[in-house]
Amino acid sequence: MKGKPLVSIISAGLSKFGKLEGLYGREIFAEAVKEAFDRCPNLNPKDIQALFVGHMGESYEHQGHTGATLADWTGLLHIPATRTETACASSGAALRIGIFSILSGLYDVVMVGGVEKMTNRTTPEVTEFLAMASDFPFEQWHGITFPGLYALMATAHMHKYGTTEEQLAMVAVKNHHNGFLNPKAHMQKEVTLEKALSSRVIAWPLKLYDCSLITDGASCLVLTKPELAKKYTDTPVQIIGTGQASDSIGIYERESFTSLIAAKLAAKQAYQMADVTPKDIDVAEVHDCFTIAEIIAYEDLGFCKPGEGGRLIENGETTLEGSLPVNTSGGLKAKGHPVGATGTAQAYEIYLQLTGQAEKRQVENAEIGLTHNVGGSGATAAVHIFRRE
Amino acid sequence: MKGKPLVSIISAGLSKFGKLEGLYGREIFAEAVKEAFDRCPNLNPKDIQALFVGHMGESYEHQGHTGATLADWTGLLHIPATRTETACASSGAALRIGIFSILSGLYDVVMVGGVEKMTNRTTPEVTEFLAMASDFPFEQWHGITFPGLYALMATAHMHKYGTTEEQLAMVAVKNHHNGFLNPKAHMQKEVTLEKALSSRVIAWPLKLYDCSLITDGASCLVLTKPELAKKYTDTPVQIIGTGQASDSIGIYERESFTSLIAAKLAAKQAYQMADVTPKDIDVAEVHDCFTIAEIIAYEDLGFCKPGEGGRLIENGETTLEGSLPVNTSGGLKAKGHPVGATGTAQAYEIYLQLTGQAEKRQVENAEIGLTHNVGGSGATAAVHIFRRE
Repeated sequence: MKGKPLVSIISAGLSKFGKLEGLYGREIFAEAVKEAFDRCPNLNPKDIQALFVGHMGESYEHQGHTGATLADWTGLLHIPATRTETACASSGAALRIGIFSILSGLYDVVMVGGVEKMTNRTTPEVTEFLAMASDFPFEQWHGITFPGLYALMATAHMHKYGTTEEQLAMVAVKNHHNGFLNPKAHMQKEVTLEKALSSRVIAWPLKLYDCSLITDGASCLVLTKPELAKKYTDTPVQIIGTGQASDSIGIYERESFTSLIAAKLAAKQAYQMADVTPKDIDVAEVHDCFTIAEIIAYEDLGFCKPGEGGRLIENGETTLEGSLPVNTSGGLKAKGHPVGATGTAQAYEIYLQLTGQAEKRQVENAEIGLTHNVGGSGATAAVHIFRRE
Repeated sequence: MKGKPLVSIISAGLSKFGKLEGLYGREIFAEAVKEAFDRCPNLNPKDIQALFVGHMGESYEHQGHTGATLADWTGLLHIPATRTETACASSGAALRIGIFSILSGLYDVVMVGGVEKMTNRTTPEVTEFLAMASDFPFEQWHGITFPGLYALMATAHMHKYGTTEEQLAMVAVKNHHNGFLNPKAHMQKEVTLEKALSSRVIAWPLKLYDCSLITDGASCLVLTKPELAKKYTDTPVQIIGTGQASDSIGIYERESFTSLIAAKLAAKQAYQMADVTPKDIDVAEVHDCFTIAEIIAYEDLGFCKPGEGGRLIENGETTLEGSLPVNTSGGLKAKGHPVGATGTAQAYEIYLQLTGQAEKRQVENAEIGLTHNVGGSGATAAVHIFRRE
């Protein structure tokens, strides 16, 4: 089905991202769902036939069984409701399964989404809960956590390619600028290169401003068959490519520390299915859980050659005014990273961009967009490609 | 697609169920996967294009991101690998998503399965982890756990229909007898009615022998398109119906305590898709997390009228020699209930029955089988119907 639309997105919703005190995850998800229904008056809750929702951690709210919980609290009972979990790529996987479910012929309209409530926990607790996405016997047990794992990738990249701390900080500066323009972002403030570089070291070379945020948030999309989309909206967005791959859970088993094989494979699948090349991408949301991850993403996605990611950000190519704007939403860095919600939150931004609704951060004439969602240190990656209809 | 095969099962594997000391969940899953490959010499690991795996709790082993972990430890890298979680119905949901993925046309062969490692934890820990599948603010917070929730259903059923403690105990006696005949069961021992009735009360009227086991175990199935099945095996089993539904996460919101709406809806979908009625079912594996759950399952699945479940077991209809043998594997009660593994472990037993490989517990001429997999106190249910080819 090369180049053919797999499904169409007919609506999308995103909660405010931030420290949402006093709200359960289920209530935050309901905020995203309400926006999706408000945005598409022709869509009735009864049209939704299934729910697939990414949720990473039962530990934050002592609440598993998230699929049914969210169907219950959004008025969607008694539809089948299933949680997917692939660490920080949980809702990228939910989106992909939603695509399968429509392509199966068993459903006409499904909702996919994701949610995470994190700020009710202390930073050490969150660090521990997140670490469950790494290898227990060979990583967690020895005390390494995600900043440390990504710091290993950063030092390897610096060693192999000469990538600099300044280039890492430039990713933060860009994404904070974009987040400043996004009213739903967790941190709507600019940061200077000097401030980013002088922030405290978390795991060298990664400093505070190289790390994404601990955030509460939720996101959702409504998918249908391409031939039914115009019944619901004049401005559907097609999904034309999907890819997902896995890699060893522990990074110690990997061939390379400077590239994620899972992301490269997922991108290859998605590009082939969509019948497009990296040059065709007008706007992308990539998984900048740490600034080094965005630079590696540029390379894994073919936006530049291996080792040239640092120069791509330095040359301004991925800013809002550049040739390929990346993380116009502010990314995980500034919009925030409610882990289970991130995959479909990336797709939400692309939906806004391709339907001309991204306001101050709108990329002109954006026709083709891409999302790149990574789980853990790269044991899962999901890539999706979108086209304006 | 009424009555038409959705997919075919070409192989299946099950680990030993029990207290598997010194093994991680990933190693237990590898045991199930090895059996699936051993059983089907024409199947090459490279044929498997995706993995969907049910896993309920990250807390037991401090390990989330289970999909990639299991792909890694079973030699299946770099295929897409996704964990599904719908509490104790997690691998019932994985099976259903595997079906979607084949029907989507994107895959020819996928593996579905489930795993849980539980016995490394104390009983209070396991009770707490399992409780995360119930409602946090309105159930867990107040201290109720699953034995208490199912005890509420049991007393309601006794009050409304006159169901007796003896009838509950008869479910245990039957399932322990079947488990005695199953070399992979956790408890391979018979229990007398007297012993079951005199065991200590856990949450009245539920006694020790009314409760399923805390067990380590894993299960898997290999699915393909029906037209490709004979390439791999002479004895495929077709899946001809799938249903899944949700209900309120807290039981306090339910209309009825004596029936699970989600199970009734899932069964209705599966029967309609398969174009069969309850009378056509030759053998069934139902979700006997507590003995009362099996009695309610008889009624929700239409094996008898509402209120007659107690009489069905009392009359011996669901024993190995009865008109409709139920839980020939020993069920969750005696085979064991490694929660994430249960849904596809039920399907494994039906696969054995429909291919004549169930040895001492073989149901003669079994042609059509059913699995009934419930999450939590009934907020999720998945029902599948299988046919011998």
